[in-house]
Amino acid sequence: MKRTSHIQELCEIIASEKGRGRKIAFVPTMGYLHKGHLSLIEHARKTDAFLVVSIFVNPLQFGPNEDLGRYPRDIERDARLVEEAGVDVLFHPSVEEMYPRPMVTFVEVRELDAMLCGAARPGHFRGVATVVNKLFNIVQPDMAFFGQKDYQQYLIIKRMVADLSLPIEIFSVPIVREDDGLAMSSRNVYLTPEQRQEALVLFKSLNLAQKNIQAGERSARNLERQVREKINTESHGVIDYVEVRDACDLSEVTEITGPVILALAVKFGKTRLIDNKVVEGDHYV
Amino acid sequence: MKRTSHIQELCEIIASEKGRGRKIAFVPTMGYLHKGHLSLIEHARKTDAFLVVSIFVNPLQFGPNEDLGRYPRDIERDARLVEEAGVDVLFHPSVEEMYPRPMVTFVEVRELDAMLCGAARPGHFRGVATVVNKLFNIVQPDMAFFGQKDYQQYLIIKRMVADLSLPIEIFSVPIVREDDGLAMSSRNVYLTPEQRQEALVLFKSLNLAQKNIQAGERSARNLERQVREKINTESHGVIDYVEVRDACDLSEVTEITGPVILALAVKFGKTRLIDNKVVEGDHYV
Repeated sequence: MKRTSHIQELCEIIASEKGRGRKIAFVPTMGYLHKGHLSLIEHARKTDAFLVVSIFVNPLQFGPNEDLGRYPRDIERDARLVEEAGVDVLFHPSVEEMYPRPMVTFVEVRELDAMLCGAARPGHFRGVATVVNKLFNIVQPDMAFFGQKDYQQYLIIKRMVADLSLPIEIFSVPIVREDDGLAMSSRNVYLTPEQRQEALVLFKSLNLAQKNIQAGERSARNLERQVREKINTESHGVIDYVEVRDACDLSEVTEITGPVILALAVKFGKTRLIDNKVVEGDHYV
Repeated sequence: MKRTSHIQELCEIIASEKGRGRKIAFVPTMGYLHKGHLSLIEHARKTDAFLVVSIFVNPLQFGPNEDLGRYPRDIERDARLVEEAGVDVLFHPSVEEMYPRPMVTFVEVRELDAMLCGAARPGHFRGVATVVNKLFNIVQPDMAFFGQKDYQQYLIIKRMVADLSLPIEIFSVPIVREDDGLAMSSRNVYLTPEQRQEALVLFKSLNLAQKNIQAGERSARNLERQVREKINTESHGVIDYVEVRDACDLSEVTEITGPVILALAVKFGKTRLIDNKVVEGDHYV
């Protein structure tokens, strides 16, 4: 596996592979890799393309009171994991390499960036869209892979790619969970043992909502109420949002008539966790 | 010369040329071509690259009370001109081809987009940066050529390319003028014969300012005052701005100690004309 922190060096590696007619697959990450990331890499490897993984904790997507400073990092462990996973190049630039001068160019995906996580984290998705756009320009991938846990991020990137005619296919990879159901997240290390236990209510409440839909519930507001009640009853989690939305564009839904996403964000102490479940038509039609 | 309105068809043409190791040069325009555009094409041809010209009157960069509807168009004449100029592909997409769904993704180059023309035309440079970014993603050029008349636009595109790591070299091509000094512009056709005559004051006042710098004037405010006075005395033009700015980043200048741009925008009737002159160090050191 090659490993570089330099944009120029990465560009030369990519250009040489493209020159040989090789397709490029790309998995952008913020590092501190878990099985969710490894699943992205596994899906990307199946394409047989030249596989690039980036690790970059992007300051642009953190708010002033968020966890940029304490975001977990372990580049040597990450490097071993991606090498074992069969990655061809690990790109881990410094902040100075990515932003050598004050950044004044931003990519915004309006409407999609203002709801759900965007409402609680103003500027977050602008930072995400901007860095992913820049990484796409550097890596020039044919395919890129994003986790379904960050479903809103996935839709925003997909829309950015469509609106700006980027020649890249965007894939969503299912959520990977711990054995007990907690969605994998680099931020899970922040949780105390008690919070870790209580956080299971997220997965359980999503399952409850899915079961209720299968049993005939069609009211989005009722489902949200049921999920909220379960979270409030069974944990000390502070709900940021619980929403049933259209699975294609996150538009508001009153009555469930097509695929929806049940999405939620809940704080346990200082740690904000997100989770979601897409309920397709065949689950209830 | 090939000619297409379809993104997909253009991408196939480009991919085939790139496959043969050909570099791509790109000249984006809004059509109604004049000698300024032809000079861009001439500079681009010297690179020996495969040469793509686009003609697209981009609604995103027009304000609600601007001249989108009456912007001059003559695609058949334009097609003859670019064919004679040795262009390889003319790309002239429809608005529906470029924006098949409501556009929600925007590229902003902050600070640079708010001053000078950006102050009078809010959203204008966001529209420009967004469409140029999209065209870059479609055409995948190695080099792109912009006229110095739209100096602020040139700097904004250069900054966008640097900030987002687009692998494209951006070139600025000198202003082409009519024999009597009026800067070439598709909007010159809007002028009445009297306005056309009065508009010469723009070039003359820029020359005056340059002469005054060469004679030792170092005060940006004095120069701006001299230009304003000349325009107000010798025409009915209504000044939008007259500014002496740093030529590299358009930052404010009080005393002239390095390369500056003298930039102005003046309305003759409903027609807003811009012009500028870069005064390099060797003109006055």
